[in-house]
Amino acid sequence: MRDLARDLSLLSINTATLKTLTLRQAVETLSRHGIRTIAPWRDRLAECGVKDAARLLADHGMAVSGLIRAGMFTSGDAARDDNRRAVDEAAAINARCLVLVAGGLAPQSRDLAAARGIVRDGMGALLPYARQAGIALAIEPLHPMYAADRACINTMAQANDLCDSLGTGLGIAIDVYHTWWDPDLKAQIARAGGKILAYHVNDWLVPTTDLLLDRGMMGDGVIDIRRIRAWVEDAGYAGPCEVEIFSAANWWKRDPDEVVRICIERFQSCC
Amino acid sequence: MRDLARDLSLLSINTATLKTLTLRQAVETLSRHGIRTIAPWRDRLAECGVKDAARLLADHGMAVSGLIRAGMFTSGDAARDDNRRAVDEAAAINARCLVLVAGGLAPQSRDLAAARGIVRDGMGALLPYARQAGIALAIEPLHPMYAADRACINTMAQANDLCDSLGTGLGIAIDVYHTWWDPDLKAQIARAGGKILAYHVNDWLVPTTDLLLDRGMMGDGVIDIRRIRAWVEDAGYAGPCEVEIFSAANWWKRDPDEVVRICIERFQSCC
Repeated sequence: MRDLARDLSLLSINTATLKTLTLRQAVETLSRHGIRTIAPWRDRLAECGVKDAARLLADHGMAVSGLIRAGMFTSGDAARDDNRRAVDEAAAINARCLVLVAGGLAPQSRDLAAARGIVRDGMGALLPYARQAGIALAIEPLHPMYAADRACINTMAQANDLCDSLGTGLGIAIDVYHTWWDPDLKAQIARAGGKILAYHVNDWLVPTTDLLLDRGMMGDGVIDIRRIRAWVEDAGYAGPCEVEIFSAANWWKRDPDEVVRICIERFQSCC
Repeated sequence: MRDLARDLSLLSINTATLKTLTLRQAVETLSRHGIRTIAPWRDRLAECGVKDAARLLADHGMAVSGLIRAGMFTSGDAARDDNRRAVDEAAAINARCLVLVAGGLAPQSRDLAAARGIVRDGMGALLPYARQAGIALAIEPLHPMYAADRACINTMAQANDLCDSLGTGLGIAIDVYHTWWDPDLKAQIARAGGKILAYHVNDWLVPTTDLLLDRGMMGDGVIDIRRIRAWVEDAGYAGPCEVEIFSAANWWKRDPDEVVRICIERFQSCC
């Protein structure tokens, strides 16, 4: 028999999975189910106010596996200030890391190599501020289908290269949805080693009917999640599986208690 | 001034772009516009009958940049016989190559590495037959979003590895839609060198509203097509740009003569 208590200590729920709930509602829902780790999106934090959010999380003994998200380095100068605010917010809620989504092509540009350069430079500029705040930055490679409009960092190899280039304070958030297809995944996870800061789970549905909002619950799709978990553990990652499911037509319409109950079941049977 | 006649000799239209036309209608439409290269899908060939298709193409002086498609190695034993028939068809119409789409995961399987092994073995088994027929096989890496259900060969690096492993008679069909996002694309195109057998153009729209049927016309999206063309020419490819656009909501609904006219314009201005 598996040890349920131990299992739940390795489960985190990303607030995107509970799209309809406020941060307070999400924290209370997870608490009812014995889950003690959460990953909030910044919009949920903003609604609540960062100070109140920090108190709410502390009052419920909630660990924060990551704050989602900063980055968007290719969208112009406004990103710089917003990214520093995100570092401050991550520090205020004692997040394990601040997840960075790179941003896609610069406006009106088709130059993907240039976009990738802007991202590298932007991360390099943010890093000293994050180091000073004691917040680790976690670059999350997104699936290549988001290269144009969301993230031009699309493989673990790119993320590893960025870590090698920019040094201490930068790590990686691995999401099985974004990376499962990669023929180089096993080798790049091994290469990442101790730089893995977060590990997101969900599933790739067949068919997938929407590029953004049709992710599956673990076990409902084709990703060999256990195998990828073994690879990240072999690389030294011992942190939680963080469930992040964008699902406009299915999971976002269900009762959040049911969603959390199924997350727990699938975490135990598939992850 | 660019030499229009020379330009059109480097333009091929894939019948998927003219979805509503029979092969005869497609050939006659292209002929009216001065285009002398076509890439038929096998269903268009089958409707027409392969012998009649061969005569039709010859009568109109049409070169065939590729026959689309065989492969689907992970779908079981039936694929083997069908792939040999495809080789025969390619020979009958004097196609420059037979394009192979690998196939996705095997039925009920989550083992992507195993699927990739099946594909390698299946190609290896088909190659002697294709060599004997004098037909070059062109593996086409598909975008990672098709890894589950269409093709588990998703990068130029994988295609190059297959060519290295399987030897003479296997080359690569590069489609900008499937590969534009790849941070390793330039290097892998250079590595492919003389093994590039086909080059497909279209565009990545922002937003993309459907995973399969929302490709764009060259110039309407974000792909730097000229840059990729320069890379394939530097690698030694001097063949046509083959326009392949799946577009249920737009191009497939338009008058085919208009579509071809715009293909020519965009070929000249964007490719």
